[in-house]
Amino acid sequence: MHKPTTALLFCLYAATGYGQVATAPQAPTVQATAPAAGVATSKTVTSPSGRLGLVFALSAEGVPSYELSFAGRPVVKASVLGLELKDQPALTSGFALASFTSGPHDDTWEPVWGEVKSIRNHYNELAVTLSQASTKREIVVRFRVFDDGLGFRYELPRQANLGSFVLADEKTQFSLTGDHKTFWIPGDYDTNEYPYTVSKLSEVDSSKGNASQEIAARWVIPGDFVQTPLMMKTAEGLYVNIHEAALVDYPAMNLGIDKKTFRLAAHLVPDGVGNKAYLQTPTQTPWRTVIVSDKAADILASKLILNLNEPSKVADTSFIKPQKFVGVWWEMHAKTGTWSYSDETNIKLDGTDWKALKPNGKHSANTANVKRYIDFAAKNGIQGVLVEGWNVGWEDWFGQWKENVFDFVTPYPDFDVKELQRYAADKGVKVIMHHETSASATNYERRMDEAFRFMKDNGYDAVKTGYVGRIIPRGEHHDGQWMVNHYLRVASKAAGYKIMVDAHEPVRPTGLHRTWPNWMACEAARGNEFNAWSGGNPPEHETILPFTRLMGGPMDYTPGIFEIKMSAYDPKNVAQVHTTLAKQLALYVTMYSPLQMAADFPQNYEKRMDAFQFIKDVAVDWDDTKVLEAEPGEYVTLARKAKGKDEWYVGAITGANARVATVPTSYLTPGASYVATLYADAPDASWDKNPMAYKVSAFLVDDKTVLKAKLAPGGGAAISLRPATAEQKKQLKAYR
Amino acid sequence: MHKPTTALLFCLYAATGYGQVATAPQAPTVQATAPAAGVATSKTVTSPSGRLGLVFALSAEGVPSYELSFAGRPVVKASVLGLELKDQPALTSGFALASFTSGPHDDTWEPVWGEVKSIRNHYNELAVTLSQASTKREIVVRFRVFDDGLGFRYELPRQANLGSFVLADEKTQFSLTGDHKTFWIPGDYDTNEYPYTVSKLSEVDSSKGNASQEIAARWVIPGDFVQTPLMMKTAEGLYVNIHEAALVDYPAMNLGIDKKTFRLAAHLVPDGVGNKAYLQTPTQTPWRTVIVSDKAADILASKLILNLNEPSKVADTSFIKPQKFVGVWWEMHAKTGTWSYSDETNIKLDGTDWKALKPNGKHSANTANVKRYIDFAAKNGIQGVLVEGWNVGWEDWFGQWKENVFDFVTPYPDFDVKELQRYAADKGVKVIMHHETSASATNYERRMDEAFRFMKDNGYDAVKTGYVGRIIPRGEHHDGQWMVNHYLRVASKAAGYKIMVDAHEPVRPTGLHRTWPNWMACEAARGNEFNAWSGGNPPEHETILPFTRLMGGPMDYTPGIFEIKMSAYDPKNVAQVHTTLAKQLALYVTMYSPLQMAADFPQNYEKRMDAFQFIKDVAVDWDDTKVLEAEPGEYVTLARKAKGKDEWYVGAITGANARVATVPTSYLTPGASYVATLYADAPDASWDKNPMAYKVSAFLVDDKTVLKAKLAPGGGAAISLRPATAEQKKQLKAYR
Repeated sequence: MHKPTTALLFCLYAATGYGQVATAPQAPTVQATAPAAGVATSKTVTSPSGRLGLVFALSAEGVPSYELSFAGRPVVKASVLGLELKDQPALTSGFALASFTSGPHDDTWEPVWGEVKSIRNHYNELAVTLSQASTKREIVVRFRVFDDGLGFRYELPRQANLGSFVLADEKTQFSLTGDHKTFWIPGDYDTNEYPYTVSKLSEVDSSKGNASQEIAARWVIPGDFVQTPLMMKTAEGLYVNIHEAALVDYPAMNLGIDKKTFRLAAHLVPDGVGNKAYLQTPTQTPWRTVIVSDKAADILASKLILNLNEPSKVADTSFIKPQKFVGVWWEMHAKTGTWSYSDETNIKLDGTDWKALKPNGKHSANTANVKRYIDFAAKNGIQGVLVEGWNVGWEDWFGQWKENVFDFVTPYPDFDVKELQRYAADKGVKVIMHHETSASATNYERRMDEAFRFMKDNGYDAVKTGYVGRIIPRGEHHDGQWMVNHYLRVASKAAGYKIMVDAHEPVRPTGLHRTWPNWMACEAARGNEFNAWSGGNPPEHETILPFTRLMGGPMDYTPGIFEIKMSAYDPKNVAQVHTTLAKQLALYVTMYSPLQMAADFPQNYEKRMDAFQFIKDVAVDWDDTKVLEAEPGEYVTLARKAKGKDEWYVGAITGANARVATVPTSYLTPGASYVATLYADAPDASWDKNPMAYKVSAFLVDDKTVLKAKLAPGGGAAISLRPATAEQKKQLKAYR
Repeated sequence: MHKPTTALLFCLYAATGYGQVATAPQAPTVQATAPAAGVATSKTVTSPSGRLGLVFALSAEGVPSYELSFAGRPVVKASVLGLELKDQPALTSGFALASFTSGPHDDTWEPVWGEVKSIRNHYNELAVTLSQASTKREIVVRFRVFDDGLGFRYELPRQANLGSFVLADEKTQFSLTGDHKTFWIPGDYDTNEYPYTVSKLSEVDSSKGNASQEIAARWVIPGDFVQTPLMMKTAEGLYVNIHEAALVDYPAMNLGIDKKTFRLAAHLVPDGVGNKAYLQTPTQTPWRTVIVSDKAADILASKLILNLNEPSKVADTSFIKPQKFVGVWWEMHAKTGTWSYSDETNIKLDGTDWKALKPNGKHSANTANVKRYIDFAAKNGIQGVLVEGWNVGWEDWFGQWKENVFDFVTPYPDFDVKELQRYAADKGVKVIMHHETSASATNYERRMDEAFRFMKDNGYDAVKTGYVGRIIPRGEHHDGQWMVNHYLRVASKAAGYKIMVDAHEPVRPTGLHRTWPNWMACEAARGNEFNAWSGGNPPEHETILPFTRLMGGPMDYTPGIFEIKMSAYDPKNVAQVHTTLAKQLALYVTMYSPLQMAADFPQNYEKRMDAFQFIKDVAVDWDDTKVLEAEPGEYVTLARKAKGKDEWYVGAITGANARVATVPTSYLTPGASYVATLYADAPDASWDKNPMAYKVSAFLVDDKTVLKAKLAPGGGAAISLRPATAEQKKQLKAYR
């Protein structure tokens, strides 16, 4: 191991100047620097503004490593790079620098949908080609240094001595500078539906995951492992986020922690026989990303992960429609209804006469009930109605590791596919398909074409997929290479059928929604549903998710629960949503998704239509986003401009502590008058004692206004900012 | 364990009388017998003739067991029955006899194709329902006792306390009576392509399998394990064959040997996580079969395994056409051609411009070469032309555990699908499709519909599938439950497309060709191909296969190699077929398959058209079969009557030793005159020194003739028996 060369970066940083954001492509920034002691070769590249510095080095033994600094301060100390191959010499040492390329990149692209209208992709690149003389093989390590972080990946070019191979391990390290405050969930091969723990790195203990008995399929990695996106804060106030971008044909990365040195090491999800990946040159790994800033807001604003993904592979994106939806869903979580048609158990998919089963009388996905949701959606301008439990198989779906649970095309006797499509079409609403696979991916792959054809034949444009349980092929994991490929197969095939996808229980996203914009949302974290039947999600949960899970992509968190306490349905059910009602509204802004559910029952909304008005109004696709305030675990306040409209929506949330959110409006059109409608916690509200107390008020504001919103413990505020009509200008008072 | 009750059977046997084959249904034969010491309950049933006796017993501890006797002599001594379940109490003891049913069965059915025109299904049945009081679960053990053997299986009825479950182990035993002579291949989860060893049971050593480095994917079970069908011969001259019937949704059975007690125990092929099967009530295991006789010929004539399978599930069988075929295949084994189009390696299926690859100039599946085979087939009345290596992917197909190797629809640049179909159709020949999966079953399942549609769009009616390599899903095995289901999915889907299937490297057959008659043949043993490039198949190999592998169903052994020594193609290649040429002809009779290849090159046949005449003439579907002589490892002589014709074909083969085969003709129409064309080894022929020396001669015979054929070491004789024309009666001499 060679000595750190971080010292080099101080000079570079000083020369470039902190905060000078370059706007035009710059000349290559790679510098031939005198190697530090023990370093045979090194190359340095800085970010466009010079704020970030990256040093690549090769030790005397030919071990590659890198270091990252921010404003001259080390963020990642010298950390080795390398890959281990099965039945072949490792690609970890004995390298020489064969060649390198470097240069700037600066362009701007427009996502099909998103948080902003256009995205600047601005970085300086260094690609080093490393040759291993003893094996005549070579690898390329490509670094892209942005002003908000670093991305790097391994590339394995086509070459005579490296064709198909089995990846035994990835040796990438992230040597951190101290015992950072960390927002973590346990390392796991199958689930990311854990609540977060906030602790020092040295206090991480994956075994905590074993306490989460409420999660259907867990595979906790024994030891000190965490998942990414991993959010950390240094003692000096630097925010550091480690994740990956463009996870394709490769397993997801967990991180092992050396609690003494604070060195993190990549730990890839294995397959059933212990291998990590089956690869063939030319190939590359996903990008490993380190987003870093001294402002938490910059972490949320970063588009680094999207920039490291490939452009859209969907040629005609006209079928992709960001939308809100209601659905037959919360009924089953609140236990007022069931997915299954019958309470009989041990039912086989094949050979069962479903009409002969004894109905349980609680089956939610019945034609009349679905019509009720369609009516509500039509009346309130909600575009979609999700229906879960419409298809046969739910009597015996769970926990058996059965392969043939669902066929995705046979409705229960009380669900009239044709009638509901007719009814929905009449009302201008779309029914959303549900494909729960019970994690039997082989079964789903066999039936997917038929299932998608069934959808198109019956007017469905979007599908929510689900992977509850242990994966089939047995031995594979949710986050292994095989399943990573599966989710992409689904997205790709769905694109061919012009179908939008919302995947539940997949691997966590890595920005692939740029490449497959029809794969619009994922769950892949602990969603609102846990609040209905488990210890739930603590009040700080939603202030952490944007810094962790959502770094990779939109989350179908299913906000909008108005009836906060489950005792409303069953006095014995002590579960509750751990937020106020107003915070549920704020989540429509803070928890970005282009598919956004209004998850509660229509009757609960109908009792509080003044609050529901925000859900009706709020957009799901945006021209711009301003991160007004943010601190992981504490608070998040965002303002977003609706796509193509002069309307802004603000969400402010807090964790367990009450606070006052400060909402400047300087982004509004100067001089124009807007109505700010404020959906706020009532003064006596709190998530546990009085969660449903809220107050709706409206004022006139302009771009000079600074709004203040008092957030209850576990509370939040939602604000719409829309141009004032002449009448409103007369009727409403100015915000004081 | 209770004491054997075999003694009971002596009385039963004596009462019924040996050899009195009953022709009408008999009254139930279950007798209430006084239990032996330690036996709480027992039930006895005999075969229709009384020749076989079966005792079912429950010990005082409620452990179920069975015994089997033949002519009053024990064949299987008291052997326990039971199943072990994962995370549930075992179904092995604590049983009481809740009820039983018994009765005779006698009917006759006609296979779509086969060795005989009609099959009698004649047995006495005993089904015992066993209840386990401690768990309130029950199982049924169903025994069917035929005059030529026993079949029994476990049935798990639908019940409150047993729904979906994981099978941890099957505890079935076969307690043999001594250290029998055994014809065995090593227990293995992935292959059955071993040469047989003939040894005592006590000399079995699975590790011998590790020597077979020529087999692509092996998984030898450490210890003393063998595969079924297991052929044995007792010191008393009794022939005993253990196998299974109707292997559906269950792993294949290997047998573990206790070398001290000669007790065999079922050992099921596990999946990647060590489980044996995932089952749901109502369900049943395959039938465990014990075929027994004092005549080896009876073993070959047995239809017990077919009788234990379900009737055909293919409604319209008109597309199923037994046939002979030639093909672009032996060229690759003889190494005069290649499957691949190019010698470039490390080629990816996706994104490769196949036209841009440098051709190797040896690619066999090119349009001109295929036309040569079509011409030969058309000229000689051969119905099919198999073409391997027609589709892209072969450059890099093998041994990498790659998932996406083939797409089954993209031809190489030099293979013109449309032109060849036109050409073949013009000549009245069918091209046979080839789907090598490289054992990537997931990839095949994804692409199967498209592949089958491609076949139908281009005039293909039959497909040869292949599974060379390690299975994907990784961790699964060729013979595990998942793959067992896969092969059946292929057969079933193919039936839907009216496609015939010939599966290579699948699990060995268990009579499922009764149920899926479009699944016409399998390899699933060491075929002729090994003779081209390995130590090959010893001369006794083909005398063992009918008693082992072929007990389960037809084998695509690919006989008909005329150019015996590979040195004809390459002086350095010392490999050779371990038979004489005449024996290759005899195999068309002794090695039954409704899809029968003439495997050698057209030019080799054209040099010896007098010998090829037998291949042109011989049938592939039969009205009747007579086993004239048989001894495993030594010799087999069969006569078969062509379906719907007054023609008989005889095949006589020997192992390493020369012998004279005796061929009576009493099955011919009495009084009629036939021409016997005898394709025999030349007097100086031998498999090693002079394998290609043969003599064709013709004589007049009638039903009183007894032909004698002198078989060289490793030799054989083929005989056609066809009605003599008036002219032939004049020209030919009577057989002397």
